[in-house]
Amino acid sequence: MILRLEHIGIAVKDLAASNELFEKLLGEQPYKEEEVASEFVKTSFFQTGEAKIELLEATHPDSAIAKFLEKKPEGLHHIAFEVDDIHAEMERLRTEGFQLLNTEPKKGADNKLVCFIHPKSANGVLLELCQSI
Amino acid sequence: MILRLEHIGIAVKDLAASNELFEKLLGEQPYKEEEVASEFVKTSFFQTGEAKIELLEATHPDSAIAKFLEKKPEGLHHIAFEVDDIHAEMERLRTEGFQLLNTEPKKGADNKLVCFIHPKSANGVLLELCQSI
Repeated sequence: MILRLEHIGIAVKDLAASNELFEKLLGEQPYKEEEVASEFVKTSFFQTGEAKIELLEATHPDSAIAKFLEKKPEGLHHIAFEVDDIHAEMERLRTEGFQLLNTEPKKGADNKLVCFIHPKSANGVLLELCQSI
Repeated sequence: MILRLEHIGIAVKDLAASNELFEKLLGEQPYKEEEVASEFVKTSFFQTGEAKIELLEATHPDSAIAKFLEKKPEGLHHIAFEVDDIHAEMERLRTEGFQLLNTEPKKGADNKLVCFIHPKSANGVLLELCQSI
């Protein structure tokens, strides 16, 4: 089952500049910066209550973030829910008519297994399911 | 100061249909539906951990949601942070260079005083500050 909103992903062009902006907004520094080579992104994480803000900058033109920013301005990119059993939740949501973007969970940022759900099956919202490893 | 991520606002065309979709996703019903006449919106709220999902349907062409949906598909609209003192936080963020969209807090959904911040001053993200009344 879905346990809670885990984070909000925001696509940015310049991670250092956006870190500075969100530091001003939230009054704190990111608790972590991490490069996810397999996804061609550099990320930073801010804790705000229980949920996190994840900033994502592309490191390669093939990155999903680079493709997003070719079509759209910087901004909200995805929301992620923590689940207790990612395989079971992927199967449940597939059966409910949600279109999964990967057939098996893959390794994401912040020590998680993740699966994305296509926005066209979810009210225009790119969804991520994630489970801590 | 900013205390935590309070909710994510999602613009939808048909609140009833979107409620059904999010019920499937989250495995629960909205805990509240509310019309905010001053903002020309009908809203529903889902609790997911500490943060909420707010779905927003326009009730009038002058609604900010109607204007959003004229230009963009359904999807992520804004993120809201709970603050301890909205007047102080508005003043702090104005001084930091964020562009406030209202000069005084106004009454929003879910018994809150709210203030919006222009996306162009916040990495393309429409931000809401909110404080429970």
